[in-house]
Amino acid sequence: MAANIQDTIILFGDSLTELGSEAGGLVQRFSAVYKRKLDVLNRGFNGYNTRWALHVLPQILATKSEQPHVPKVRLLTIWLGANDAAIPSNVQHVPLSEYASNLTQLIRTVTDPSSAHHSTGTGVIVITPPPVNTVQWRAYKASKVPSEELDRLFETTREYAEKAREVAGGEGVVVVDVWTRIWKEAGEVEEGLSALLTDGLHLNERGYEIVFEEVISAIKVNFPELYYENLKETFSLFGEIDYANPGPSLQKRKIL
Amino acid sequence: MAANIQDTIILFGDSLTELGSEAGGLVQRFSAVYKRKLDVLNRGFNGYNTRWALHVLPQILATKSEQPHVPKVRLLTIWLGANDAAIPSNVQHVPLSEYASNLTQLIRTVTDPSSAHHSTGTGVIVITPPPVNTVQWRAYKASKVPSEELDRLFETTREYAEKAREVAGGEGVVVVDVWTRIWKEAGEVEEGLSALLTDGLHLNERGYEIVFEEVISAIKVNFPELYYENLKETFSLFGEIDYANPGPSLQKRKIL
Repeated sequence: MAANIQDTIILFGDSLTELGSEAGGLVQRFSAVYKRKLDVLNRGFNGYNTRWALHVLPQILATKSEQPHVPKVRLLTIWLGANDAAIPSNVQHVPLSEYASNLTQLIRTVTDPSSAHHSTGTGVIVITPPPVNTVQWRAYKASKVPSEELDRLFETTREYAEKAREVAGGEGVVVVDVWTRIWKEAGEVEEGLSALLTDGLHLNERGYEIVFEEVISAIKVNFPELYYENLKETFSLFGEIDYANPGPSLQKRKIL
Repeated sequence: MAANIQDTIILFGDSLTELGSEAGGLVQRFSAVYKRKLDVLNRGFNGYNTRWALHVLPQILATKSEQPHVPKVRLLTIWLGANDAAIPSNVQHVPLSEYASNLTQLIRTVTDPSSAHHSTGTGVIVITPPPVNTVQWRAYKASKVPSEELDRLFETTREYAEKAREVAGGEGVVVVDVWTRIWKEAGEVEEGLSALLTDGLHLNERGYEIVFEEVISAIKVNFPELYYENLKETFSLFGEIDYANPGPSLQKRKIL
C-alpha cells in the first residue's frame, strides 16, 4: 500500500551492489543524497553472474502495460562481471563472449523497443567490475576452512572490464569505468588495491566512495536533469510551508 | 517501471528519520538487514511536526483501491514529536493536546476501517522522541549566525514522549520508547546525552544504533513474521541456484 509517490533508481548487480547498503556503501551514499527525491532500490545479488542475472532483470522491471501504475525507474545501473570473470573451473565462470552477449541482452531489456520491458524514460549506466587484488584474495581464500584455491585472475577481470566498455559503447549507453579509476587510485600496482578493497574482490568504504563519485559525475554529465542537486524534494522543505494555511503547500509536487 | 517485486517498510517522521539514510543511521541499518527482502523507504521530513505530517501521510500511503497494484507496506513507523515539543513561540510548536489528537489521527489513517488508506496487513509502530540535551542544543543555537535562543526544554519533550506512549497504548499499536531507553543509556543525566546526540537534538551513530536495536526487538516480539531473520530473500541465494537449469530456481518466491 505504498503510494506511487517517488520514482526510483535501481542499482542492479552482484555482491558489489548488494553490500552497498552497508554504511559507506554505494547504495547508502545514493540513498542519502536522493532522499525525499528518488527511492534507491538495492537489487544486488551476491555471487550472481550475467547468466543468472538475465533471469532476474525482467522480473524486477515492470512490463510496458504495468509501467503506468508503478514507480518509474529513472535510472538503472548494471554492474556485473566480477563473478563472470572467475576461472573456468568455478561454477560462476561465464566465457567472455557469452558475458558480452548477456550484457547486451540485459541492456536491451530496457532499450530495445521490442522488449516487453522497454522504457524510454530510463537512463542506463553500465559499471565495469573493479580490478582484483590476487595477493589479498588468495590469502582470503586460503584462510577459509577448508581452505580454497585462488579463483580470480587479475588479467582476466581486466578483459571483462574492457568487454563491458566495448558492449556499453556499442549499445550507446553510458559506461562508468570503475576498473580504470580504481586501478589508477591504486597507483597501478596490485598491492596498492589493498587500500580500496576489503578482501581483494569487494570494496571498502574508500573504494565505494570512488565508485559513488564516478557514477554521480556520470549522472551530472549524461543525465543532468537527474543529478540530485537539480531535483526538488517531493514535499516542501520546512521553510517552504505556509504555516497559516499549510494544506496547499504540502501537496506532492513535481521534482523535475 | 519498477515491478512490484518487494514489499516495503516505511519509516515516517521528521529529521530524526530523514537523517537516518546517512551511514550508521536508522534507515541505513534497516536497509542493510532487509536487503533482498523488503524495500525500506525514508519518509522523513526535516522540521515537520504532526500538524504538517497529517497532510503528508495520506499522500504516501495508497488508498484501498490502489493497494492491490502497488508494493504492500508491511510496517509503518511513526516517529514525531521532537518538533511539536518546541517552545510555544517557535512556529514548529504544537500544543500537547493537539499533538495527541494528531498522532491519533495519523495512526487511524492505517488502522481505522473507515479510513481511505486502511490496511490490515500493515503493522504500526509509534516511536517516542528522544530526550533533548539543552546544554548541547543551547550551545548549538548560540553558535548560529545570527545566534538563536534555546527553543527546546528537557521537561517538555519528556511530556510529549509520555503522551506518545499513552496515545499508542490507547490505539492498541506498538510503541518503542526511545525517550526512556536513551535516557537510561545517558545515566539519567542531561550531560550524559552528549554521547548519543550530535547537537543535543539529533542522534549520532551510537544513538541510532540504540534506536535500531529497540525497533528491531519490537518487530521480533510483535511482528515475528517480519523479523528479518525470518524472511527469505525474494530471489534465490547463489548456493540455491540450479546451475544446470537455472531458470526455474530464479523465479521470484514468497519471502514469508
